[in-house]
Amino acid sequence: MAVKARVLYDFTAETGNNELTVQEGEILTIINQNVGGGWVEARNSRGNVGLVPEDYIEGVNGNEAWTANNNPADNWNYTEQEPAGNNGSVYSFDEEWDDDSDDGKSTGGYGGSQTEEGGTMQRAGGHSTMKIALNKFPGFSKTPNPELYLLTKHIAKGNDTLPIYAGEVGPVWLYPQISLDCVVADPKKGSKMYGLKSYIEYQVTPNTTNRPVNHRYKHFDWLYERLVDKFACALPIPCLPDKQVTGRFEEEFIKIRMERLQGWMSRMCRHPVISNSDVFQLFLNYKDEKEWKLGKRKAEKDETVGVKIFSTIDPELPEIDSTQVEQKFETYSQFSRSMDNSVKELLAVGNLHWKRCTGPLQKEYRQIGKAFQNLSSVFNTSGYQRESTLTEALTATGKTYEEIAEMVSAQPKKDLHFLLETNNEYKGLLGCFPDTIGVHKAAIDKVKEADHLVTMNKISQQDKHTMEKNLSTMSYALQAEMNHFHSNRIYDYNRLMQFYLEEQVKFYETIAEKLKKALGQYTTM
Amino acid sequence: MAVKARVLYDFTAETGNNELTVQEGEILTIINQNVGGGWVEARNSRGNVGLVPEDYIEGVNGNEAWTANNNPADNWNYTEQEPAGNNGSVYSFDEEWDDDSDDGKSTGGYGGSQTEEGGTMQRAGGHSTMKIALNKFPGFSKTPNPELYLLTKHIAKGNDTLPIYAGEVGPVWLYPQISLDCVVADPKKGSKMYGLKSYIEYQVTPNTTNRPVNHRYKHFDWLYERLVDKFACALPIPCLPDKQVTGRFEEEFIKIRMERLQGWMSRMCRHPVISNSDVFQLFLNYKDEKEWKLGKRKAEKDETVGVKIFSTIDPELPEIDSTQVEQKFETYSQFSRSMDNSVKELLAVGNLHWKRCTGPLQKEYRQIGKAFQNLSSVFNTSGYQRESTLTEALTATGKTYEEIAEMVSAQPKKDLHFLLETNNEYKGLLGCFPDTIGVHKAAIDKVKEADHLVTMNKISQQDKHTMEKNLSTMSYALQAEMNHFHSNRIYDYNRLMQFYLEEQVKFYETIAEKLKKALGQYTTM
Repeated sequence: MAVKARVLYDFTAETGNNELTVQEGEILTIINQNVGGGWVEARNSRGNVGLVPEDYIEGVNGNEAWTANNNPADNWNYTEQEPAGNNGSVYSFDEEWDDDSDDGKSTGGYGGSQTEEGGTMQRAGGHSTMKIALNKFPGFSKTPNPELYLLTKHIAKGNDTLPIYAGEVGPVWLYPQISLDCVVADPKKGSKMYGLKSYIEYQVTPNTTNRPVNHRYKHFDWLYERLVDKFACALPIPCLPDKQVTGRFEEEFIKIRMERLQGWMSRMCRHPVISNSDVFQLFLNYKDEKEWKLGKRKAEKDETVGVKIFSTIDPELPEIDSTQVEQKFETYSQFSRSMDNSVKELLAVGNLHWKRCTGPLQKEYRQIGKAFQNLSSVFNTSGYQRESTLTEALTATGKTYEEIAEMVSAQPKKDLHFLLETNNEYKGLLGCFPDTIGVHKAAIDKVKEADHLVTMNKISQQDKHTMEKNLSTMSYALQAEMNHFHSNRIYDYNRLMQFYLEEQVKFYETIAEKLKKALGQYTTM
Repeated sequence: MAVKARVLYDFTAETGNNELTVQEGEILTIINQNVGGGWVEARNSRGNVGLVPEDYIEGVNGNEAWTANNNPADNWNYTEQEPAGNNGSVYSFDEEWDDDSDDGKSTGGYGGSQTEEGGTMQRAGGHSTMKIALNKFPGFSKTPNPELYLLTKHIAKGNDTLPIYAGEVGPVWLYPQISLDCVVADPKKGSKMYGLKSYIEYQVTPNTTNRPVNHRYKHFDWLYERLVDKFACALPIPCLPDKQVTGRFEEEFIKIRMERLQGWMSRMCRHPVISNSDVFQLFLNYKDEKEWKLGKRKAEKDETVGVKIFSTIDPELPEIDSTQVEQKFETYSQFSRSMDNSVKELLAVGNLHWKRCTGPLQKEYRQIGKAFQNLSSVFNTSGYQRESTLTEALTATGKTYEEIAEMVSAQPKKDLHFLLETNNEYKGLLGCFPDTIGVHKAAIDKVKEADHLVTMNKISQQDKHTMEKNLSTMSYALQAEMNHFHSNRIYDYNRLMQFYLEEQVKFYETIAEKLKKALGQYTTM
């Protein structure tokens, strides 16, 4: 009997990816439940066959057991469901876990995965991406409760401690002697599921070992999730480059994704806390599959996540009182909001300018070029003897303006691109500040309640002191982080503006030179 | 009894000129018939009072005698109606004759002037300008009949002869040793009618005498009419700059009109036939009012107008047969059409570019400038200590882009303006070619008929020879004129393009320099 399924959400196929576009409510015939990786092969009523994400469909006729579990033998691919909330990415070629399953936990079957720790669930495609907060600290859809940390008396010491020092600019993280960096390069296409699905693997080479490791986008995503879980209460972790980009297999897409992954990785490398973390070191330095798999399992089991990260922070500085803390938080909050607006303004005008350069402006310079050349052609028909110098010069001028048209159109890619990319990165980073700062604000509110709680005998005087001390630690963490942000920002914008202006100078100088050359063709009179 | 009048045509008042906007069919009350210069003061039904051109209204209630003639004593201004068809220009401040009346012929009263020779009648304002051909050769609304000339046996010799020589490039006019030029400058505002109307007088200084003469726009227009009458069958006479421009009293308008009159005068000066003509010499060199008035009267009585001009042309070259003539005409005709199209294309794209530079492009560079400056302001609020170099550099960059915005917006006036003005002039000139070439084509057709006419005994064999010889003369005239045109064209476009490119080079170099300066403010890292 043919297994039928109903489509739950609209899904648009990626071209060249053997996928099938389906619409909500449509009834499909399941042809192959054993494709794996969260996919099934299905046929629609018009007879078209293709892959559909299993999350997007439900069994009909009470048949809820059509899934790949039916045939455990063919199941090695399918049963691999990553524990930490990657089940939403099944529809994307490079977001599935299939070739490095190491835990054997099957959460397969209809209904999506449920991990033991909870986690985030993402669904995209026809729908807007959303993250649903489950029972952990996931993606900040609600502000994590800092109370857990504020009342912690025993602060961890030892290897995992994150010290904060008094630097020239104020509280700072401990920076390594040699700053870490890495190169993301050499994207290679691989395929799986008997060639039905393919993915891109990037080579990541850290400057410390100079030994490349391979990672797919989903590995970066896994790292991102780990970093969010572990650090996001204290450090804004910028999002990975957007998954929802079309034209995945085009060179352009791979290039831009690689460039953005490079940007993201470099930013992570530059961060003294992140770059020094076990999970980040694992990502860059794992020696073989075994080390990677063991490291992964360990990272996923890390308990020091969410607000607990503050327990590891050790500011070797005098305690700050909560009024000062609040003022600082307010300043940071306002600064990040203002910068966010300003960055968005720059992005808006930059995008507008890009469109004008590649659109009407290019067209107009072409038209100017054509007009000069046409005039030259007409002059050539005059039959007048003394024409050639002018017509040749006019033609050269016309061609010069055509060249300028192409230069104008190509220029945004040369300079505006980097300006927009960097600002886009900052937009993403600034978007994380409200959540991070929110944790701190919630902590202030808790500490403000402390006196009352003491009166009510809910907490002891000692607890109150602990809370104040811990709030001071949180404040130092935010200050260190803001100082890190400012120092990076100044570096980035300095570099960015210099690069932009250098390219702009070159651009205008080249145009001037070209025009000067065209000018030289006319006879002086 | 109040004198009433009905409005015949819509008339739109010029601001600041004491005029009254009226609509066709409206009934006005005449307040002052003695304003003079072709104007009456009137009140409309809403009580608004202002000047209305008398040509635009007619008396009602059988009262056709409300005109200024009623009071001959106040009439010195009004009775001055120029004999050669200037009655249409009464509504324009600088197109009336009032201060140099020399013939005393009054054509005053309602109904406009009738000159003894006929002439052109223009009416503008709410209506589109039109020229009505009367009994002479006026404005080419019909092709003048070349027959009159073709059968002329006796060709004038003597001082008035226009010789054509064999030059290096073919048949050419006789060029003077020193080429004539003049400077149109120093516009001065005068007024008349007790200050109700005013006009602008320009100083015209020829390089030959270096002695300035004063002329108002209407004098240029008078000269133009004389040149058309006399030469337009053989030489395309470009139109004067348009009368229908708004903002007459604004400096901008005066400047642009002066510039265009300068362009027109220089072109006329450069023409060996025109510059040497009595009427043109009179215009530039008259010593006093008396000489001017006598010369004017003489010029208006010149009989050698229309096709008769060919009688004065003496090509000292062998006769060309009519087949060759036809081929040449065809070439010229096609060239002028193609160039006309090409010039219009350049004007269209130039105007588009102008609008883009002064509109969206300026706005966009301003926005870029603002965005950088806003970012700088935000950075200034960071409270971070190492901010100032970057924020100062960013502000400077922002200001630089604001300067670029103003440069971009101001640039068209610097370079595109001259390009468009020159091409506009050429558009006007090329617009005269079809009429001039049309006369020649009509002559070819007549000569083609000649055999038939001989057979029919309408003309003699001798007449036919005369016609062929005269056609050859016409052909030489056109060739000389085309060679003159080509040589001027090459000169003009060479100069134009060099000027344009020089300004463009300066523009781009200046931008590059400004950006380089802004770049220098960043710290090198």
